[in-house]
Amino acid sequence: METANKKGTLISYRPDIKILDATMRDGGLVNNFRFSDEFVKDLYKANIEAGVDYMEFGYKASTDIFKEEDFGKWKFCKEDDIRAIVGDNSTNLKIAVMSDVGRTDYKRDIIDRKDSVIDMIRTATYIHQIPTAIEMIEDAKEKGYETTVNIMAISKVNEEDLNNGLELLCKSGVDCIYLVDSFGAFYPEQISKLSDKYLELGAKYNKTIGIHAHNNQQLAFANTIEALTHGVSLLDATVSGMGRGAGNCFMESLLGFLKNPKYNLTPVMDFVEKHILKMKAEGVVWGYDIPYLLTGVMNAHPSSAIQFLKEGRTDYSKYQQELIDEN
Amino acid sequence: METANKKGTLISYRPDIKILDATMRDGGLVNNFRFSDEFVKDLYKANIEAGVDYMEFGYKASTDIFKEEDFGKWKFCKEDDIRAIVGDNSTNLKIAVMSDVGRTDYKRDIIDRKDSVIDMIRTATYIHQIPTAIEMIEDAKEKGYETTVNIMAISKVNEEDLNNGLELLCKSGVDCIYLVDSFGAFYPEQISKLSDKYLELGAKYNKTIGIHAHNNQQLAFANTIEALTHGVSLLDATVSGMGRGAGNCFMESLLGFLKNPKYNLTPVMDFVEKHILKMKAEGVVWGYDIPYLLTGVMNAHPSSAIQFLKEGRTDYSKYQQELIDEN
Repeated sequence: METANKKGTLISYRPDIKILDATMRDGGLVNNFRFSDEFVKDLYKANIEAGVDYMEFGYKASTDIFKEEDFGKWKFCKEDDIRAIVGDNSTNLKIAVMSDVGRTDYKRDIIDRKDSVIDMIRTATYIHQIPTAIEMIEDAKEKGYETTVNIMAISKVNEEDLNNGLELLCKSGVDCIYLVDSFGAFYPEQISKLSDKYLELGAKYNKTIGIHAHNNQQLAFANTIEALTHGVSLLDATVSGMGRGAGNCFMESLLGFLKNPKYNLTPVMDFVEKHILKMKAEGVVWGYDIPYLLTGVMNAHPSSAIQFLKEGRTDYSKYQQELIDEN
Repeated sequence: METANKKGTLISYRPDIKILDATMRDGGLVNNFRFSDEFVKDLYKANIEAGVDYMEFGYKASTDIFKEEDFGKWKFCKEDDIRAIVGDNSTNLKIAVMSDVGRTDYKRDIIDRKDSVIDMIRTATYIHQIPTAIEMIEDAKEKGYETTVNIMAISKVNEEDLNNGLELLCKSGVDCIYLVDSFGAFYPEQISKLSDKYLELGAKYNKTIGIHAHNNQQLAFANTIEALTHGVSLLDATVSGMGRGAGNCFMESLLGFLKNPKYNLTPVMDFVEKHILKMKAEGVVWGYDIPYLLTGVMNAHPSSAIQFLKEGRTDYSKYQQELIDEN
């Protein structure tokens, strides 16, 4: 039976499942991290009331590499900026930030956890950067943080390299390894097999497994629940799916699905009513559209689709031919 | 292994799989069947070029029950109106119409197939109407048509009644029985089990099985491909998901997924560029939104969500409470 290796039922809940709100980090890629303080404060409150477990505030990018005036402050997530929102964060909601390999001065900018309001450092790496990612993970671990790692763009990685990369990470101090569908290219039956692969290694090395999905084919939620039924336990979502290109798994869908009594959809809907509808009316654009479907189907980076839409183009067939030429 | 009962692979194709375009029928519920002739002609051409197998033109509703001036002509699908678009339809695209139990004067309005350009009569029934549906199916069968049946709203039907209804239909002359998720309430793992149930009975009685999904939880495409990997073979989709409320499985997604060389996404994208973008700009509204998520999660008819959006309301939390009171 197909259900043999499913964990839990549609009526019960698994206490090991945790939700991470990535709205400001992946959504920040849509608006260059220019969120108003009111948006951030209200999102923080909504996440607390909704029972969300982690809130990712943005990237910990190096100001030596990126000019501060080119971005909103959540590209850099300085300690004082986070504290201006959360104070000492005496809540159950944990605070996460993302460090990109090669874009973060982690030795300088990530301070000891005892001096920080941040709880979790999430390292994002491509397959060929894993040794550097491990140095960053070990640094964060030594400083006292919970750690996760995203291996990005694995739909373009061959299986042997992926296995070897996973083995290396499993032998590191990282707490959680993320299954990431950067290009929204995977179908649920592929997520099913990948989840089993990640979970099997995770069980051997005592790592939890997370999932971060993209909505190019309107499969972000489907892939997230496929992964969780196999045992994946750290689930990324964003409010109204806000995220680069086609965006992510909708927080609303995930909260509607999960049965843990601590989760509550209402504050997130109130946040959508107050902030997301306004943001969309002001012309901030993300979410499923044909160009993203095409990059998803072709397992390509969404950058050219983002450009296509920014230019106001609608000649989908011509774009499809351009994509075929470039891939 | 979970893949044990999967039919086919992601790289191969199954020649038994056929696509039905339900844009004008389910989409007609959005705009009261008021499609321009140019829209219908272009959709007909696009479907032919895309390799779509069936095109559903609308309902065969009785003009004794519904006033003709209240609807566009595709509510009634008169022979002459279809012929004005397709002539004698000397193409590989077959033509379907839907008959609702209790709303169609099938004895009068469905003529012999030899005199008609229609190929397939689709009967839509609630569980308690199945005996009447069977009379309609046998009538259509005798007149020479391919026949399908949709048992609607099965997410509200208990398992014993569903089993008994399916047995009755299996013993009728119907060619294909549809698994229908009227309220967009099912998750893929439920579709998986239901597909196996329908397919097992179908195999015993030599019926093919179809799927008609709704996108309340952004799962219409995921549920459609879940069903097809189990062996379901007649797949409903609509252009850009056009259909009542949250709409249906996107034709674009389905054509992007299927590997049969006869299918071609390009003409459908060209149709979207020419007609759907315009229709949306003119204010015709369908597709995923929070109120539809709520009716999906609560397994409720989308009518109150349609009303909520029509009134321009955005107080999602209050609506959620109203739904809880009413269900």
